[in-house]
Amino acid sequence: MVYIGIDLGGTNIAAGVVDENAKLLSQASTPTLAERPYEEIIRDMAACALEAVKKANLTLDDVKAVGVGIPGLADSKEGRVIFCNNLAWHDIPMQEEMQKYIQKPVYIDNDATVAGYAESLAGVSKGCKSSVFITLGTGVGAGIVLDGKPWSGAHGVGSEIGHTTLVANGIPCTCGNNGCLERYCSATAIIQAARQAVMTYPDSAMMKMAGGDPQKINAKIVIDAAKEGDPAAKQVFGHYVEYLAMAINNVTAFLDPEMIVLGGGVSRAGQFLLDAVEGVRPRYLQYKTLPSPRIALAKLGNEAGIIGAALLGRQ
Amino acid sequence: MVYIGIDLGGTNIAAGVVDENAKLLSQASTPTLAERPYEEIIRDMAACALEAVKKANLTLDDVKAVGVGIPGLADSKEGRVIFCNNLAWHDIPMQEEMQKYIQKPVYIDNDATVAGYAESLAGVSKGCKSSVFITLGTGVGAGIVLDGKPWSGAHGVGSEIGHTTLVANGIPCTCGNNGCLERYCSATAIIQAARQAVMTYPDSAMMKMAGGDPQKINAKIVIDAAKEGDPAAKQVFGHYVEYLAMAINNVTAFLDPEMIVLGGGVSRAGQFLLDAVEGVRPRYLQYKTLPSPRIALAKLGNEAGIIGAALLGRQ
Repeated sequence: MVYIGIDLGGTNIAAGVVDENAKLLSQASTPTLAERPYEEIIRDMAACALEAVKKANLTLDDVKAVGVGIPGLADSKEGRVIFCNNLAWHDIPMQEEMQKYIQKPVYIDNDATVAGYAESLAGVSKGCKSSVFITLGTGVGAGIVLDGKPWSGAHGVGSEIGHTTLVANGIPCTCGNNGCLERYCSATAIIQAARQAVMTYPDSAMMKMAGGDPQKINAKIVIDAAKEGDPAAKQVFGHYVEYLAMAINNVTAFLDPEMIVLGGGVSRAGQFLLDAVEGVRPRYLQYKTLPSPRIALAKLGNEAGIIGAALLGRQ
Repeated sequence: MVYIGIDLGGTNIAAGVVDENAKLLSQASTPTLAERPYEEIIRDMAACALEAVKKANLTLDDVKAVGVGIPGLADSKEGRVIFCNNLAWHDIPMQEEMQKYIQKPVYIDNDATVAGYAESLAGVSKGCKSSVFITLGTGVGAGIVLDGKPWSGAHGVGSEIGHTTLVANGIPCTCGNNGCLERYCSATAIIQAARQAVMTYPDSAMMKMAGGDPQKINAKIVIDAAKEGDPAAKQVFGHYVEYLAMAINNVTAFLDPEMIVLGGGVSRAGQFLLDAVEGVRPRYLQYKTLPSPRIALAKLGNEAGIIGAALLGRQ
């Protein structure tokens, strides 16, 4: 038997067929066109999934279940999307709509959760019974895997590490709180700090890379400039890494998983990021001489969303 | 069959016999006299346990296992204490020593972990599959229960919520970091803030209650004065509650357990504390309209340590 995984994003829908061994057999994608009624979007998700099944030379008879990763909160028991900010969805009957096209069990979970689950099944944390995947993108999300299973909390509102307080009374966050972790550890945080820094250091390499327009500075530019030794970029990146090390320490001190996996846009800095984090991390560790979670870079990339969603149905 | 539970503290050893239903059948205690060699302390722990067995009119034939809660870190698989700061213990062969006197399997875990486990078996969080117990004492510890089992992390260094960063670059902590949660949420934090406050408000009721000596202000005095409406005490308590609400929100956003249980000295403020926390908590919740963990006061008190330790052997 195989599993359909659907990664629902604000821009694209990606679907794929995954076998029992977490191997991705086929893929298809289509634009989300997020402003449409949810019925149309879910219809296209189903069509995209059926295309992937066909590409794998299989039929629905071979499919055991459909899993969906969403950029929001799910009530997996009821098969409903509680909400997705990007799509302006509130209380959407995902399972009911999906089963109009594909009469299989439907599982739903948060996109960072399923990506973390995928890494634990087929990626860098494969074989770990417990792991925390942290996605460092526009925001910061997490995928918690405990005892080999994805954990979204007792009420489905967990794994939102981006909205834990890291700096009490700190920078205002989009969620209404202050000092949320994602205000310091996201790609957005790097970019904002860099735009600030070039006001003081207009000769920074970051400005040249951005064609003289601070608004064109992105996380890649900051990291590339830091790698080249640009002082302003190094400072921005260094501050970022300090906060990220605190975030990693918070996961270590509280949950202590076998592995902490870094994913999302900033993780594309690769070994440069990992070396920087490992460099400052010992300072934050409470038990410096004891074993603690290994830190690693995610390796499944965009496929993680499909693989993890698909295998929600294997549990 | 019954289980022996031993609560090893810096001052006292408490042992008890607990049945399959988490009922405490008998108790005994003896001073720790922490400066002695560990062999003597463990000998006394065993003697105390045997006394409790006798008090319950049972024999060792009725005992299935021995569980020990320690104020430190344990390697439960190897039956060793990794370390206990209070006792200046490092890598102590607890199981080996204990089995000189009681030839039963020996389980060891952190004291806050076993107390949280006990609450989930026989206390306020009974019936919850997931809970986080937070002990608000001299420091701040936690006991995480997931899927009905105590969770101390993959390397035994987890559940140390007191040493997660709540205020990046904040007040220096005993652990070497800055801004650790326990610097803001412990009884110690309330006391220090109150001693500071009475310098500005020497007429505060707290000073009268402390006989005019700021060094005699304890958490109970601050809470009693706040209950009576003393402005300085209300301010100190109000600030404390804000940080505690952030801490509770961090647990909610990251792990989202069914219940968050407050224990330790500060929790003796009872409903007054609970009402204050519930008053400010909605402000910090990310998903204000969705269900979230219930907050409750621990109810087993000192017995939690014995009951939780004992039932480590029932898993």
